[in-house]
Amino acid sequence: MTQEKRRADSAHGSVLTINGGSSSIKFALFDSLDPPRKRLKGGIERIGLSDPAMKVSQGDQPAASQAIAAKDHQEAVGALLDWLDQQGSLADVGGVGHRVVHGGDKLFEPQWISADTLAELKRIAPFDPEHLPGEIALIEAFQKRLPQLPQAACFDTAFHRDLPRVSRLLPLPRRYEAKGIRRYGFHGISYAYLMEELARLDARLARGRLVLAHLGNGASMAAVSDGKCIDTSMSFTPTAGLVMSTRSGDLDPGLVRYFLSTEGMTADQFHDMVNHHSGLLGVSETSSDMRDLLQRQAKDTRAREAVEIFCYQARKWIGSFAAALGGIDGLIFAGGIGENAAEIRAGVCQGLEFLGIQLDDARNAAGEPLISNDASRAAVRMIRTDEEVMIAKAVAGLMQS
Amino acid sequence: MTQEKRRADSAHGSVLTINGGSSSIKFALFDSLDPPRKRLKGGIERIGLSDPAMKVSQGDQPAASQAIAAKDHQEAVGALLDWLDQQGSLADVGGVGHRVVHGGDKLFEPQWISADTLAELKRIAPFDPEHLPGEIALIEAFQKRLPQLPQAACFDTAFHRDLPRVSRLLPLPRRYEAKGIRRYGFHGISYAYLMEELARLDARLARGRLVLAHLGNGASMAAVSDGKCIDTSMSFTPTAGLVMSTRSGDLDPGLVRYFLSTEGMTADQFHDMVNHHSGLLGVSETSSDMRDLLQRQAKDTRAREAVEIFCYQARKWIGSFAAALGGIDGLIFAGGIGENAAEIRAGVCQGLEFLGIQLDDARNAAGEPLISNDASRAAVRMIRTDEEVMIAKAVAGLMQS
Repeated sequence: MTQEKRRADSAHGSVLTINGGSSSIKFALFDSLDPPRKRLKGGIERIGLSDPAMKVSQGDQPAASQAIAAKDHQEAVGALLDWLDQQGSLADVGGVGHRVVHGGDKLFEPQWISADTLAELKRIAPFDPEHLPGEIALIEAFQKRLPQLPQAACFDTAFHRDLPRVSRLLPLPRRYEAKGIRRYGFHGISYAYLMEELARLDARLARGRLVLAHLGNGASMAAVSDGKCIDTSMSFTPTAGLVMSTRSGDLDPGLVRYFLSTEGMTADQFHDMVNHHSGLLGVSETSSDMRDLLQRQAKDTRAREAVEIFCYQARKWIGSFAAALGGIDGLIFAGGIGENAAEIRAGVCQGLEFLGIQLDDARNAAGEPLISNDASRAAVRMIRTDEEVMIAKAVAGLMQS
Repeated sequence: MTQEKRRADSAHGSVLTINGGSSSIKFALFDSLDPPRKRLKGGIERIGLSDPAMKVSQGDQPAASQAIAAKDHQEAVGALLDWLDQQGSLADVGGVGHRVVHGGDKLFEPQWISADTLAELKRIAPFDPEHLPGEIALIEAFQKRLPQLPQAACFDTAFHRDLPRVSRLLPLPRRYEAKGIRRYGFHGISYAYLMEELARLDARLARGRLVLAHLGNGASMAAVSDGKCIDTSMSFTPTAGLVMSTRSGDLDPGLVRYFLSTEGMTADQFHDMVNHHSGLLGVSETSSDMRDLLQRQAKDTRAREAVEIFCYQARKWIGSFAAALGGIDGLIFAGGIGENAAEIRAGVCQGLEFLGIQLDDARNAAGEPLISNDASRAAVRMIRTDEEVMIAKAVAGLMQS
């Protein structure tokens, strides 16, 4: 560790959580450590683009919305910290917690970011060129502005760290495993939250055979048995698995030579296609946003097909994980789509009666916590996930240790 | 059609079936058209390599085994036809039927090979560079040697022609669909045979919800409901789907940039890796042959892991197709592994009791036609598939039409 670690005390009891994308930052400030309480949350959009802006809300109320200068992550972080300073909140911050999507095969558990951590993140940046470079830039931006402020990394891969060999090993030449080419799995911070919540809501179910479905712009599932993740749909990168907003999910690897030779794509163009122009957007040709597609599907076959493919492939993944688990006791929906789109939850569960899954239409439409009917052998639940609170807890834990 | 079509008559009642690979040809001669009866079968190996050889058997008895000259497909076809001529069998041949793996989005049903057919096969050769160039070379070799002999193509894609949109459409930019980029599915000649046999064995089951598992060096599954194929594991190419002998099956498309940028592979090298150095061979590092791996697994962790991954991924595909079908009435094993490896059948079915699948260990070990136990809700069967007889029937049908 090159940074001086602050102790948790009344002066520095706040934790700032950072969830960074390539052109955006979502953040939240937690002001009480046990349990953490979210004081405010917000986001900076369009970093490096025209008209970058920051929005903040407290509770459910908007607290600020303003244009900022943010030609890069450094300026964006500056704008955020300036604003926190103006609010008198910055001096309280005892630690920053970053959601880091990929930690490679060495970094899994939440940890303070040392020079070594940062070097390792830079080494594995090619594992996930979609996310890691932006996340590294954010860490460096904080370091530059407030070198004394401890920063921690929470990895989305931690939840899946101990996958059994059959699901961890990829069917590729074995020598690549030593280079870190394996199934990692992502959305792990969200999954960890879901498991904590489920243990609180239904401790017995939490020890059962579960499929956790985090369905947002990025979408994945995890198969969990007796609290342990035994398989997950994302793989070496978050491009794998289910059909997503703009990502294809798993593909026929025989397509690669076709696109690169016959279509003349470069590897970067292929990567761009499967990450940014596929999935719901690719099939619908109009939108990557499930809300748009649900609105348009009655009039636009392409939108309808995108919705149908999303539900169909998600349903198949549930069947696949049921086979891995030997049956299902519970199915948990979370994420932007999983929490808010009753129609998608119904579409995904359609025809899964053979797995003991029966939705209650009214409960599902109302978005109740338990959406299966009383005859359903498997419990189907909706849980509003909260990655920030998990990060805040992890940083609080590090501060107190 | 540029060829003169011979009518089926007593002089030309035989059909020669050809199943060609890049360095091998499997062939069979059928001498009675309704129903076709296999007179002999054989294979030519190591075409274009050192010491090419031809083996022929009649019934279960070896009939010939000899070194031949076969520096290319042309010479190999010459050697085969010379041998048939010496046996007095060539004059009877009224038609040749080729197994053609891929027919693109225009060619599906069995048909005589016209100049147009051949031109279309050449156009779509980039769809399946692993198989089509060799198959085209074989057709041309016959054309050159016996220009008057009618040749027919039977496509492995025909069985899956009418896949529903949700399983046919790939989650890629929609414009590629117009270029023929869709799920095709393969092993269709084998699946058609299995369905005919199943209708004979258990007509009611044949109308139910079925998973057909063709597990050989190439391995795939098809989900069939009321006689119609509704989904299949192979996709645009036969590299997709299950873990196979040397093919990876479906992969995280995010791996492509890693291998091409960080590992410095070309698209051709990636294609070679996922087709020839992955799957069982990649994981075991020693063999692509399931028999070897089953023998070695007690002493070699890598062999054991290869076997386990094969079974695990196959099991997940069954679960996935059960979800697509809304449950399973029957599971059919076929192909070199599916027909002969009781241990693999047991491994694949392990933990699928929740689907109503229960094997009878003794029946399975004995390789009986019905291998589920009497309490099993779903019937599990083993059927010895026969692609040649399906091709012979199709050619006979064309000759008589």
